[in-house]
Amino acid sequence: MLDIDRIVAEVVDKLAPKPGLAVPVGVSARHCHLNQEGLDALFGPDYELNVYRELYQPGAFAAEEMISVVGPRLRAVERVRILGPTRGYNQVELARTDAIYLGVQPPVRDSGDLAGANAVTFIGPKGSITVNAAIRAARHIHMASAEVARMGLVGKDRVRVYVGGEKGLTFENVRLKIDESYLTEIHLDTDDANAAELACGDTVTILP
Amino acid sequence: MLDIDRIVAEVVDKLAPKPGLAVPVGVSARHCHLNQEGLDALFGPDYELNVYRELYQPGAFAAEEMISVVGPRLRAVERVRILGPTRGYNQVELARTDAIYLGVQPPVRDSGDLAGANAVTFIGPKGSITVNAAIRAARHIHMASAEVARMGLVGKDRVRVYVGGEKGLTFENVRLKIDESYLTEIHLDTDDANAAELACGDTVTILP
Repeated sequence: MLDIDRIVAEVVDKLAPKPGLAVPVGVSARHCHLNQEGLDALFGPDYELNVYRELYQPGAFAAEEMISVVGPRLRAVERVRILGPTRGYNQVELARTDAIYLGVQPPVRDSGDLAGANAVTFIGPKGSITVNAAIRAARHIHMASAEVARMGLVGKDRVRVYVGGEKGLTFENVRLKIDESYLTEIHLDTDDANAAELACGDTVTILP
Repeated sequence: MLDIDRIVAEVVDKLAPKPGLAVPVGVSARHCHLNQEGLDALFGPDYELNVYRELYQPGAFAAEEMISVVGPRLRAVERVRILGPTRGYNQVELARTDAIYLGVQPPVRDSGDLAGANAVTFIGPKGSITVNAAIRAARHIHMASAEVARMGLVGKDRVRVYVGGEKGLTFENVRLKIDESYLTEIHLDTDDANAAELACGDTVTILP
């Protein structure tokens, strides 16, 4: 015998949102990465970065050193923190608010993908370089593969992330960045964080 | 006889998202409203605002006049546009990015609701005033009641609004502001707009 109530209940359950997965928030203010050549040009030959503060992701650090970044409107975003260690490229990650101020329209990219990056000038105490380096960082979550499995996200490369509260919203297109060294953490730029009223250490929810 | 497939299809249809309703975007950069007393203190006795540009909402205009706004960190947000005509209160609407720069934590409020507004100093060419005036504007949609009815939103005071694209997201808690004089338009501050990569004239979608 058919039980319509049961059928309806099962369909409703199948379509209803499932409980989400909590992830801690790291807000990424504008910052840059440099290669050794860039570091030398800005700070002097064979320069080495000094650790200002260890970051949450193992091995990453905020350096004591900062630069200014100048764009086509000839205005400077000053005191942009360098994140270490040095990498294979020169890159500055800006929020769109910063980009409008500088007069650039940087593409949304994974860190290290500089396709279409905008030209800006980096200024350090010993020199300056003009490089195709300006991007906006894609929203992403750092996660180890065991955690990906535990959360039931195997095979996904993007997820949706819900934030509650008066300034609540759901972010689309949050990329999963998977590496065994990663601690689980969502990285958002200051525009995304400020739109949703988030600060470092807050928790958001991956939607199923 | 019961048709399970039909029952399932009907329930699925009932729960599925319906096509949304398109709304044009107005991005509100930081701006202020003044009462006549405030205008007089900042610009001189019996001062009258001059129209710089008519706004989309009938009667509203951006004035030629601008002020600086200073907060507890003693830094100024300069050249903040006054929107006219004069109102019954003094108010500055900031994005959270601006608020962090100034060192205030303004509450999210409808325009004109200054409960808990932060103290800031307004500086004009003829004087300054310190007032509890800083808020962040709640996300809202201007709409005439006929349009509310046409869109099937009668009785709702908040809606969800979807934005597509790489920086896509869904805003929660978008308030409906209904008045016969209003043209349909969603107002977002620069943090919300930049997080979602929106500009004036773009279109977003009210979710059913």
